[in-house]
Amino acid sequence: MTIDLRSDTVTTPDERMRAAMAGAVVGDDVLDHDPTMRDLEEAIAELLGVPAALWVPSGSMGNLIALMLHLSRGDRFLAATGSHVLVNELGTASWLAGGAPSELAWDLAPGQFSVESLRAAVGGAQPYHGLRTTLLSLENTHNASGGTVTPPDRHAELVAAAREAGLRVHLDGARLWNASVALGLPPAALTVGADTVQVCLSKGLGAPVGSMVAGSTEFVQEARRVRKMLGGGVRQGGILAAAGLVALEQIDSLAVDHRNATLLADGLAELGWAVTPPQTNIVIAKVPDLAETLAQLQRIGVLAGPMSGYVRFVTHRDVSADDIKEVLARLDKE
Amino acid sequence: MTIDLRSDTVTTPDERMRAAMAGAVVGDDVLDHDPTMRDLEEAIAELLGVPAALWVPSGSMGNLIALMLHLSRGDRFLAATGSHVLVNELGTASWLAGGAPSELAWDLAPGQFSVESLRAAVGGAQPYHGLRTTLLSLENTHNASGGTVTPPDRHAELVAAAREAGLRVHLDGARLWNASVALGLPPAALTVGADTVQVCLSKGLGAPVGSMVAGSTEFVQEARRVRKMLGGGVRQGGILAAAGLVALEQIDSLAVDHRNATLLADGLAELGWAVTPPQTNIVIAKVPDLAETLAQLQRIGVLAGPMSGYVRFVTHRDVSADDIKEVLARLDKE
Amino acid sequence: MTIDLRSDTVTTPDERMRAAMAGAVVGDDVLDHDPTMRDLEEAIAELLGVPAALWVPSGSMGNLIALMLHLSRGDRFLAATGSHVLVNELGTASWLAGGAPSELAWDLAPGQFSVESLRAAVGGAQPYHGLRTTLLSLENTHNASGGTVTPPDRHAELVAAAREAGLRVHLDGARLWNASVALGLPPAALTVGADTVQVCLSKGLGAPVGSMVAGSTEFVQEARRVRKMLGGGVRQGGILAAAGLVALEQIDSLAVDHRNATLLADGLAELGWAVTPPQTNIVIAKVPDLAETLAQLQRIGVLAGPMSGYVRFVTHRDVSADDIKEVLARLDKE
Amino acid sequence: MTIDLRSDTVTTPDERMRAAMAGAVVGDDVLDHDPTMRDLEEAIAELLGVPAALWVPSGSMGNLIALMLHLSRGDRFLAATGSHVLVNELGTASWLAGGAPSELAWDLAPGQFSVESLRAAVGGAQPYHGLRTTLLSLENTHNASGGTVTPPDRHAELVAAAREAGLRVHLDGARLWNASVALGLPPAALTVGADTVQVCLSKGLGAPVGSMVAGSTEFVQEARRVRKMLGGGVRQGGILAAAGLVALEQIDSLAVDHRNATLLADGLAELGWAVTPPQTNIVIAKVPDLAETLAQLQRIGVLAGPMSGYVRFVTHRDVSADDIKEVLARLDKE
Repeated sequence: MTIDLRSDTVTTPDERMRAAMAGAVVGDDVLDHDPTMRDLEEAIAELLGVPAALWVPSGSMGNLIALMLHLSRGDRFLAATGSHVLVNELGTASWLAGGAPSELAWDLAPGQFSVESLRAAVGGAQPYHGLRTTLLSLENTHNASGGTVTPPDRHAELVAAAREAGLRVHLDGARLWNASVALGLPPAALTVGADTVQVCLSKGLGAPVGSMVAGSTEFVQEARRVRKMLGGGVRQGGILAAAGLVALEQIDSLAVDHRNATLLADGLAELGWAVTPPQTNIVIAKVPDLAETLAQLQRIGVLAGPMSGYVRFVTHRDVSADDIKEVLARLDKE
Repeated sequence: MTIDLRSDTVTTPDERMRAAMAGAVVGDDVLDHDPTMRDLEEAIAELLGVPAALWVPSGSMGNLIALMLHLSRGDRFLAATGSHVLVNELGTASWLAGGAPSELAWDLAPGQFSVESLRAAVGGAQPYHGLRTTLLSLENTHNASGGTVTPPDRHAELVAAAREAGLRVHLDGARLWNASVALGLPPAALTVGADTVQVCLSKGLGAPVGSMVAGSTEFVQEARRVRKMLGGGVRQGGILAAAGLVALEQIDSLAVDHRNATLLADGLAELGWAVTPPQTNIVIAKVPDLAETLAQLQRIGVLAGPMSGYVRFVTHRDVSADDIKEVLARLDKE
Repeated sequence: MTIDLRSDTVTTPDERMRAAMAGAVVGDDVLDHDPTMRDLEEAIAELLGVPAALWVPSGSMGNLIALMLHLSRGDRFLAATGSHVLVNELGTASWLAGGAPSELAWDLAPGQFSVESLRAAVGGAQPYHGLRTTLLSLENTHNASGGTVTPPDRHAELVAAAREAGLRVHLDGARLWNASVALGLPPAALTVGADTVQVCLSKGLGAPVGSMVAGSTEFVQEARRVRKMLGGGVRQGGILAAAGLVALEQIDSLAVDHRNATLLADGLAELGWAVTPPQTNIVIAKVPDLAETLAQLQRIGVLAGPMSGYVRFVTHRDVSADDIKEVLARLDKE
Repeated sequence: MTIDLRSDTVTTPDERMRAAMAGAVVGDDVLDHDPTMRDLEEAIAELLGVPAALWVPSGSMGNLIALMLHLSRGDRFLAATGSHVLVNELGTASWLAGGAPSELAWDLAPGQFSVESLRAAVGGAQPYHGLRTTLLSLENTHNASGGTVTPPDRHAELVAAAREAGLRVHLDGARLWNASVALGLPPAALTVGADTVQVCLSKGLGAPVGSMVAGSTEFVQEARRVRKMLGGGVRQGGILAAAGLVALEQIDSLAVDHRNATLLADGLAELGWAVTPPQTNIVIAKVPDLAETLAQLQRIGVLAGPMSGYVRFVTHRDVSADDIKEVLARLDKE
């Protein structure tokens, strides 16, 4: 049996979630606001500690809408090296939202940059013909660095420095739930001071389709319009929202994925792999030849993926501790 | 009880469709291609008589992707007055796909323009600093004119003239199924010569979410990439595709909606309304004061909408012949 | 000798203008603001009765910058059929400035639309997913209709209706000087209530390169930045500004062009041509076969151009009354 | 007297150039192709060893047009840290041309990156939903690193690696003339293998306004159209082209600027400044407090500018060796 550790996006809805979808009360969300959509939007807004939220078909669209509303031509935005908005969204932050990206190197720890480098990147006053830095885009957990967590004190320090420099703040929280569980803190403790937040219902939580973008009431009102522009306005979306509501009840179970990631990382280390101890559900390992390792893994029925030159394994609800042990057993035989 | 005739977009999935969604086999469509998505895409390609098709969250996104791939800055495209791509998609054909719109007036019949006006709109050779007309965007049935049908001979004539003038052809078939049923012809008979086609699974067919954009294999390959850019790539989309597969089995039942539209139009005419005999499921009526009429209808529990200065009533699977009679009875009492 | 009546854009600088360019005091306009540029900008602002003005390399860039600052994605703007921003600027109003165009037909007179059709085009309240009409773009004189003049009372009426409907107003005054001379009114009398105005120094006034875009101080400050984005910021632009200052002294001489246009129109009418009496320096004539007529004219050394299906002749400072008589004589011999 | 070393963009046209402008033969470049424009375009194409060239109002527009024709949404382009297209063009490479930027660090020498880092940045095959790297944008001399020169062997090596990886190559040669003079090689020796090249006539060569973008005949044909879109098409541009033709005769005199830069750098070093020996006409110096140093310089009548955290002095034709000695004398007195 193949064990799929490429991403937590491969999770499939379980019976309970499927039943919720089958029984969902729905309406025309474009004309009226679907009632289950509304329930989900209210639940998310409360969880994130912000006034309002909006369902979107993908995390990419959530980030895109936020950036379209924050950025204009001639603006520059800052994000840590490897951020999803920089490398996994086909440049939409630039050509569609209008912002020129500026990368912040990981000068503190993997995925983490210092307040000093944030300030240096903003720079001083610019002439009228220079780019204006207007946005900081954070990502928690930070995928490309191996699911690293930004704790609230670091987050607060960055947000404060950003605001001091006149920047708005967007938080890509595609895996914010993992950070919340790893820290033992409610999600709202990790969004403080962000103007907008995006969170995913698929990935670790297991919903088939859907993410949320959240912020002020005015933001969400305008975001609804931009969603329609992009073709992300759907009709009886309550079907998917029902899955989202079940997903929210499964946040705590991410702790299992985190334990499995540690199990995997420890086992790999024992087998001599160069792994970094995981903070959440992502294990990255440095190997001499990435393509060869991925091919070898595939031969023994283990799917992993490449990430910034590393092998990336992602644990998730469709993989058990026994599956992880099986992965290690197969590798041990090699 | 309120009878909602604002649009066929208000249709909700029935038990069979809900069961299909609950039982759908799914996979990660971004990484692997979800198996039910694949089934639906193949079924649609066959129905439309084209090599390939792609699921999208909305008809707007389907049209947008096609126009993004057909148009570039400096291009002009032609579409009949009132076309969805002109008035209901927030200008994305222009600011996102890059095409300057040029309206073709209804010089033949409501929703229908002549080959002569198509040729005149294309014009002769342009200097290097003039717009280049490169695309004809058709819509069948044509919503704003009251769901009017373009029969295959008219379609062929327009497509031939467009190709002669070097234009590509996109067909917005959000309600192509209605045209097919009204004409008693298979959908593929109505797509001949179009480079790309968009069809909706929601609206009259009752799926909760989803449309399809179809064309050549190369088109669909590139469309998949553009869909990801816009944030329309979803993970376990098979849930929605399963609803789409059921929707396709319900095409024939649109004949009921068409009969109900005629029932409504006849009844309204008897009550003295200025209605045009409907060709499909849309009834439009000219009234002295549009806002007042809509308000009056709402008072008696009948929801209708404004369309190009007319009152528009749309029949659909959640409204029965008895409901239509009830609407007429309530109006008669006024 | 060929007599070139294709456009007043063919005018070449005379000796006085060339001397002014050769002697211009200049500086780096990007870094410091070139002193002759500054003089020209102040002179134009005063002439137009607005706070500030900015030099741009072309009228197209002037219109584009204004529209980029007035419009956003999801907006719609209104302009008379045949307006330069609709047909001669390669769709930039749409794909670069973001506005979906809506044409206003000439229901009053050539180039002129009524307040009623303006109001109808704006329409009533729109749902969140509808285009928002936010701008009226006027053109005075209106080129495509044969250089027709909008007098101040008509202008005021349109501006008032636009503002009542919440629209901003841009005035494409590429040939505003001609309207001013034809009416015997100062240019500032024709800009009342417009948020932004574009005027050309080339065309009838004879400067080799350059137009101006004008409006509030804040507008011009932001326009300077957008000009830099588009690559229209130049260094020692004072050379061209010096020509512009001479051009402004030549406004009154446009009366000669207008007399010559009348001379031409009268002569053509005597020869049996279907001409409309010109209001300024543009003569349009309806002919049975446009391409044939243009070819015939070229054979006898007279250059004219096509315009909205008509032959267009434009009089200008490099064509004298004797040249016009010569044109008529050549035609008489045919 | 103030000595202005902020940039070579401050150079003003001399008497000979002014006379050439005053006497230029001109025509309507949009309608016919101005004859002096044509002469200049042919001269530039020959100098650069490419088939065709086009005048543009600024180097920014030249780069922008090239990038608009090379890039599409979803593409990524590579450029050395600090390149003009990355930091001085208001993000147009991204939001207007559609390319996501990827910076190449100076791993070989200031302004210079290695073939290895170029290859690493391109990466391997990407999934359909990843950015496609399609363009390498070079800059010679490289401004932000202090006017550093890329010699032909390094250039060839980079172009070869780029082509091997399927990339197109654009060369921002705003100061290519300086590289040519510094190396004692004709400009065409430095453009080998580039698809497009941009060069400036203002800056060191002293023309008041204008740059050129060059490449294949097909490229220039399409570039002319894009120039019109951006509003960079001008009418009697021959006035400025005449200045450009004079500018080309002055290329050799850049050697004087280079000698003056060395004179300045040596003098500053003697005064204890941390300067890098200049390769062309740009001297950069590391100082403890940039703002303070710039203010101090201004107090003694010496204008310099900030550049990547350094003080930048640029020598040019309006500054003599005596002026440089005067700068050093004033600094010595401090």
